[in-house]
Formats: sequence, structure tokens, C-alpha cells
Amino acid sequence: MSSSSFINYSASYTDLYQLTMAQVYFEQGRKDTPVVFDYFFRKLPFKGGYVLTAGLGALLDILEDFYFTTDDLAYLKEIGFQRNFLNFLKDYKFKGNIRAFPEGDLVFANCPVLTVEGNLIDGQITETIILNVLNFQSLVATKASRMRQVAKDKILIDFGLRRAQGPASYYASRAAVVGGFNATSHVKAALDFDIDPSGTMAHSFIQSMPDELSAFRAYAESQKDKCVLLVDTYDTLHSGVPNAIKVGQELAEKGHRLLGIRLDSGDLSYLAKESRKLLDQAGLNYVKIAASNQLDEFVIKSLEEQHAPIDIYGIGTSLVTGRPDGALDGVYKMSEINNNPTIKLSENIVKITLPGNKSVYRLFDKNGEYAGSDLVALRDEDVLKQMHHPSDPYKSMRIEELKKEPVLGEVMIGGKKVKANPTISEINAFSQKQLKKLPDEFKRFENPHIYKVGISHGLQTLRNRLIQKHTL
Amino acid sequence: MSSSSFINYSASYTDLYQLTMAQVYFEQGRKDTPVVFDYFFRKLPFKGGYVLTAGLGALLDILEDFYFTTDDLAYLKEIGFQRNFLNFLKDYKFKGNIRAFPEGDLVFANCPVLTVEGNLIDGQITETIILNVLNFQSLVATKASRMRQVAKDKILIDFGLRRAQGPASYYASRAAVVGGFNATSHVKAALDFDIDPSGTMAHSFIQSMPDELSAFRAYAESQKDKCVLLVDTYDTLHSGVPNAIKVGQELAEKGHRLLGIRLDSGDLSYLAKESRKLLDQAGLNYVKIAASNQLDEFVIKSLEEQHAPIDIYGIGTSLVTGRPDGALDGVYKMSEINNNPTIKLSENIVKITLPGNKSVYRLFDKNGEYAGSDLVALRDEDVLKQMHHPSDPYKSMRIEELKKEPVLGEVMIGGKKVKANPTISEINAFSQKQLKKLPDEFKRFENPHIYKVGISHGLQTLRNRLIQKHTL
Repeated sequence: MSSSSFINYSASYTDLYQLTMAQVYFEQGRKDTPVVFDYFFRKLPFKGGYVLTAGLGALLDILEDFYFTTDDLAYLKEIGFQRNFLNFLKDYKFKGNIRAFPEGDLVFANCPVLTVEGNLIDGQITETIILNVLNFQSLVATKASRMRQVAKDKILIDFGLRRAQGPASYYASRAAVVGGFNATSHVKAALDFDIDPSGTMAHSFIQSMPDELSAFRAYAESQKDKCVLLVDTYDTLHSGVPNAIKVGQELAEKGHRLLGIRLDSGDLSYLAKESRKLLDQAGLNYVKIAASNQLDEFVIKSLEEQHAPIDIYGIGTSLVTGRPDGALDGVYKMSEINNNPTIKLSENIVKITLPGNKSVYRLFDKNGEYAGSDLVALRDEDVLKQMHHPSDPYKSMRIEELKKEPVLGEVMIGGKKVKANPTISEINAFSQKQLKKLPDEFKRFENPHIYKVGISHGLQTLRNRLIQKHTL
Repeated sequence: MSSSSFINYSASYTDLYQLTMAQVYFEQGRKDTPVVFDYFFRKLPFKGGYVLTAGLGALLDILEDFYFTTDDLAYLKEIGFQRNFLNFLKDYKFKGNIRAFPEGDLVFANCPVLTVEGNLIDGQITETIILNVLNFQSLVATKASRMRQVAKDKILIDFGLRRAQGPASYYASRAAVVGGFNATSHVKAALDFDIDPSGTMAHSFIQSMPDELSAFRAYAESQKDKCVLLVDTYDTLHSGVPNAIKVGQELAEKGHRLLGIRLDSGDLSYLAKESRKLLDQAGLNYVKIAASNQLDEFVIKSLEEQHAPIDIYGIGTSLVTGRPDGALDGVYKMSEINNNPTIKLSENIVKITLPGNKSVYRLFDKNGEYAGSDLVALRDEDVLKQMHHPSDPYKSMRIEELKKEPVLGEVMIGGKKVKANPTISEINAFSQKQLKKLPDEFKRFENPHIYKVGISHGLQTLRNRLIQKHTL
């Protein structure tokens, strides 16, 4: 990231304990010990059936330029870090390898989404930034994809900047498009991420003029074919829509077309239906209806089920904050050290990690359709006939005849991206293709079908051996 | 903000419609029309009884340097803005006046928290950044203050960076301290905001060594008196705590003191009690117990009610994302234009705005205690004998004998801060003093008492007149 970036990440954007641990590794002479870490999550957000990944491009850009600034080093000295270690940090740069699901792909619980191979310092210092970037952007992209699912081919616009969690707005606007949105009101995000900018007008504009009609006229005169009028400042059906119709007809006389009206309060279904009637009766059947005000995927679904004639949805808070979840529970766990697999135990078997350097395969049936399962195997394992349940030793299935497509691609080698990030429209097209392939039962909001993530025979055997080693 | 700031705000960090409206104002020759806008919110977060404000310092710093960069202007040209308007924007800088509650004060629903006086362009272009900064930081500070309330004098540490909404983490760590936290794991935030940095160790460190005991020994050797050992990697009571005790005794033999152990899973109350017993029996009664894992104000309250011997709480997701709310519903409404009061109507009387340029008074009884009410009055009104309910015309109370303290201070004049921002520890001390003054019934989690925000006779009369004007 250049110094004119909106956000200037440096390696001090991390948890203190990463540096404390790194210092101990350094003091122990273990800084070059090779390790493998996995990023994954345990719970799907929104009680849904999948996660749509986002943030990989931003993460790789940050990691390509992840070092400690002079200010960082001075501060670390001040809070007690050792001189030799600080000398080492001065020249530190992330030089690890990363394999990951492509941005915009669908991923499921307890499956590695990204793996880091590097030395102990690389593995440790990058934990926080990986979690910070991917947890949030994937949460918003997943939320956006749920809205896209119910809005079908309607226009979805991100209006979230004012309610976003401060600067989180920047990546939220991008993640919305990764998940299926069309545009954003956020000018800076539109500029930097090549998203279509969009917006209408605010109540304050109406209030700034002596009356609603003169406000609409002034806006139409300036905006012409791009004019969307906000109709609820005083009274939607008795003032806003009739005034919008007058202005729409005046525009038509001058050879222009009023683009739309926006409803921002009240019963959106009722008001959209009544407004549509009034507009159509006035010969303005081309004028679009935009709706906003506390929308989320459930409200959009309900509006669509009521056949509310809404063409454009503007969505804020629930999209950009991922409400009510707030965070994806992604974790980052060591799976190998010094070429030996390692494990973290837990009283809860579901929370025991998957040891070793691993590959992930998406399984397809003979027609090329999703088989509803991903397989996690050891990287050097090649006979994959059987898939086991990750925690129930009695459950397994034959997968010999299923097609196995490896999904973790090499995206960074020695700290350098292997290729340029895909564009936002490429990612959007990819995510929509992947969502289309996923059968509906995994996408429904209520009790979705559980997509299986199974483990290979080799991985099961290795895990059992390590559990026994630690518990005997 | 200098170009080496963590975040480089520019005036394109706004909603597109602010610029579209500004262009119309410019074309209409109204760019110098004076306006007043109010920032306020309608609903208290977390079903609680107050909001603790945060973010004012950051906002003023941003506004002092809020202009359009060359890149911004080139982009606006590309998306169709007019040349004359862009020439105007090139030299645009916010030059308005701002009055506001001080950062760390308690504020309540439907009361102006901040007002902007300036020209139409100033008022419009700054709406988004004001909402974006204050909504989020106030949400987190309020959440933090609820945790402080139940944790009493225990140490509270922000561990939220990995689960925060991307770069929102930066301000979240600061807002946590505004609300009553002691420290953060976030190195960059600690550096920039002068917060105590804090941290322990991760499971990966334990996994990186052949066994838990040798991992603890290595960490203790490096960390000495600052050593906090994570005891749940394999088995808290049968492995982690006994190993920590061994290492604690070894440290003691060398004249050091083990600082603490950290519990990160399982039943924290039970494990804290058992661990305390084991530590005390081993003569390590000075070793502190830290707890983390999905904590929020309700879990902390429950742990305290169970007398769990926890000395330090580490809190992540619920703090830094303000879960489950995600956003404070702050809005920004025009209250005066061209020296004439203006109003936004709504079918719901609660959502009708308060017109005019206003002052806010906090009311105190004759003992100097909170009277449980704030009064909103017109700025030029001086006989304040009666306070009216904001929406129920039949409710009013005499306030003649109450002390009325004006609370909106002038913080920016002509786009310049009137003084340097207070330090984070000054704000923390102020917020804790204000919280202490607020009677308990307004602070309880379940159905808190409602703090009244009333309006003066002059404001009531003005509002009624404007409502009648628009509805007759």
C-alpha cells in the first residue's frame, strides 16, 4: 500500500502477544522454524448455510508491504522489547506462502479457508491481520449475498456509510459488491474499488427550500435524467408523490425522464403499491421506485412476497455491520511445526483442531453438481476413497466415484502475490456463479441443510494418534 | 491529520448525495446560505438507559483537514460533476462552528448532542463523517461502560482486534478506554492513543514446544515478572494449572513473581475457583487470574455474582462490535436555514424534529444531584420556568427551582478547534465521574428508568406553529 492509501497498515497493527511470543522465539533461536497455520471458522453466521469469502485481495496487498515503521520500533523499545529483537524486526518482512480459497467462493464450517506456511515469526505476527481482514469482509459479503438471494434481479445499493463501524465502511462497501450488490453511496469506496456510485437526495434538501414542489423542481432541473426524488418529508401520498408526478411530467415535456422516487418511511409495501398506481395513472410507468429504511434480508423477502413494486433497495446498517452477528468467529491455529503435525485439544471434540499440512477438495457428482461435501485431507495423501465425519468416529461415506476438485490455490509465495488481484466485477461474477451452483436447501434462511466437511482416512488416523499422545 | 496517519480521511469520505445536493445549492447560488444542523439519536442502545459519547476529538481532527484531494476531484469529474462546482470544491474547506457535549459525557435520546452552524455546503458535506465517527465510537464507549459497571474495580482489557470490523478496531480500542477500559492488546491503537498495551500468550506458543511445561518455562524465562500463562491448551486443572504452579515456584526461587494465569475456555467460574485454590495452596496467592472467551456485560455480571475470583477480564467481539446492536441510530437533521427554523414531519410524532438553533441544559436539584432531566430550549430563550414533554402536549413540569447547566460547549469556530483535545485519561476520568453521578436506576440493564429530555415553552410553541404551517 502506498503512503497515499486510505489506510496505512504497518506491522504494529497486531495484538501485543504476537510480538511477545515472537521475541521469545527469537531469543530461543527458533525464528526460522517452519510452521503451518490454518484460518477457519467454527460457526456459520446468521444461522445460515454458508460463508461467502471476501477480503483476500486486501489481505495480500497489506501483507506484501507488512513491516514495522520507525515509529513502531521506537514504541516497542519504549514498552520494553529487547534491542536484538528490535534489530531483527527492523528488517522483518513477511516472506511466507499462502494458499486460499479464491475471494467470492463459498466456504463452510471447520474447513481451512487459508493456510500460511512460513517461519514461526511469519506465522505468528500475521495472525491478527488475517483474522481482522477476513472475518469482517466475509461477514458482510455473506450478508449481502442473502439480500441478493431474496431481491432476485432488483438493484441493491449500499447506503451504510453513516451507520457503519467508522472506517469499516470502506471495506464493507467493497464486500457488499463481492456478495452481490450493484452500487454504493460511499464516494471514497466507489473511487478506490471501482464500484458504481449512487445516491438520491436527503430530507434536508427539501427543507432547504420554501416548499416540496420547488425543491423537487430545483433538483430535477439540475439532475435531469438522473433525478430520484425523496417523497416522504411531509406526506408521501398526499404531497410527495403528487409533487413528484408534477415534476416528472414537466421533465417529460422537456424531453427528459424522471428516474425514480424514494420511499424512506412508513409501510413500504403499501406505499410502493399506491405510488406505482399514481405514477402509472399519470403516464409515468417508467419511473422507478426505490425503498430504504431499516431493511434487511427478511424485510426484503417479505416485500418481495407481497409483490411490492420496488425496483431498487437501499440498505444500510444490517448490511455494513452484519447485524445481529457483528463478527465471524474465524480462528487461526497452528497445524504443523518443524514439519511435525500439531494439535490443540479441547474438552469439546468439535473444537479439537485438524493437524498437519492439508489440502481441501470440493466434491462433485458425476453430473458436475455439488455433492454437498468438502473433503479435508493431508497434503501428501493421494488415495481418497473414504470420507469420515470430523468428530463422530462411526460415520463415514465412500467418495471414490465423486470428482474431487482442489480448492486452495497458491496466492502468495515468499511474501509476493503470484498474480494481480481479480477485479471487483470478476469477483462479483464468480460469487454469483458459485451461489447459483449451491443447491437451494443450503441457502434457505430457516434451518438450512448442513454442508458436510469431512476428513480423509489419513487425517483421521493422524488426529487420533495425536489425541492419544496428549491424553495418555 | 498528516499523511502518515493510520487513516487518511478526505472529503470524498461521504455519501454521493451530499455532493449532488451541494452541486444544486451551488448552481442555485445558495452556497453561502447559513444553516444549523443537529446530531442526535432516537433510541438508546442495548436496551439501556444512556449513551456515553465518544469520537468528538477524532471528528474535530478530521474536520480541521477535510478537503478534496486531486484524486477525489478527478473522480468527481469522471462521474459527471460540473466544472464550476469542481473549481469551487477545489478550494473548499469546512469553516463552520460546532457546539457539542464533551467527549465522555452521558447523553440521552432525542437531545441534540452536537450542532453544526455553517453554510449549506458545510452543513451538507459533513453529515456523513459526523454520523460515521460519532455513531460508532459512542456505541463502543457505551458498551464498555456497561462492562465497567459490573466489573467494578477489576482490570478490563480490550482483546477485540481480531474480531473487530476491520479498521474499526482502531477507534474501538480508544472508545473502550473512553468508556472505562484499562488497556488494549492493539499495539497500533496503544501507540497512537496512548493506551496501556497488554497481552498474554496464545495456544500456538504452547503447541510450538514439545510440551506445556517447557513452553511455560521458556515464556517465564523471557517474561519474568510480566509472565501470564495460558492454561487451557490441553487440560486446565490437570495440566495447565499444575504446570503454571511449577513454573511460578521456579520463578519465585529466582526472586520473580508469576504475574498471572489465563483461562480461555470451559466454565470460567468453576475453573477460576479451583485454580485459585490450587494457586493459594501452593503459596502463589499473588498470582492473578485472567479470564477470556466470549465475555460480555451479562457474563461478567454473572461471574461477579458467583464471586468467581477473576482479577482481569479480556473482552473481544461484544465490546468492539457493540453486539448485538451493531450501530447507534444517530441522525443529522436541519433545524434552521437562512435564520428561519425548519422542521421535518413524520406520521410518528416522536420522529418530528426539533426546529431552531437550540441550547441544552442539564438539570440539577438543590443538592447538586442529577434531576433526571435535560432541557432543550431555543438559544435565545431565557425565561425557563416550565419544561414540556416533547410529544405529549398534556405533560409538563415546573423547573424554576432547578439548576440549569448549559452542556453544549463551543468546540470549533470557523473550522478551527478552540482548544486541543483532552487526553484519553482525562476523558476516561471525566466519563467515570459522570457515570458515578448518574443514579443507579438509569444504569440498570433491565428496564432502566427513562431519563427525560424535555422542551422549553418557546420551543414547543415554535414546533406547533411549524407543524400547523405544513399540515394545514
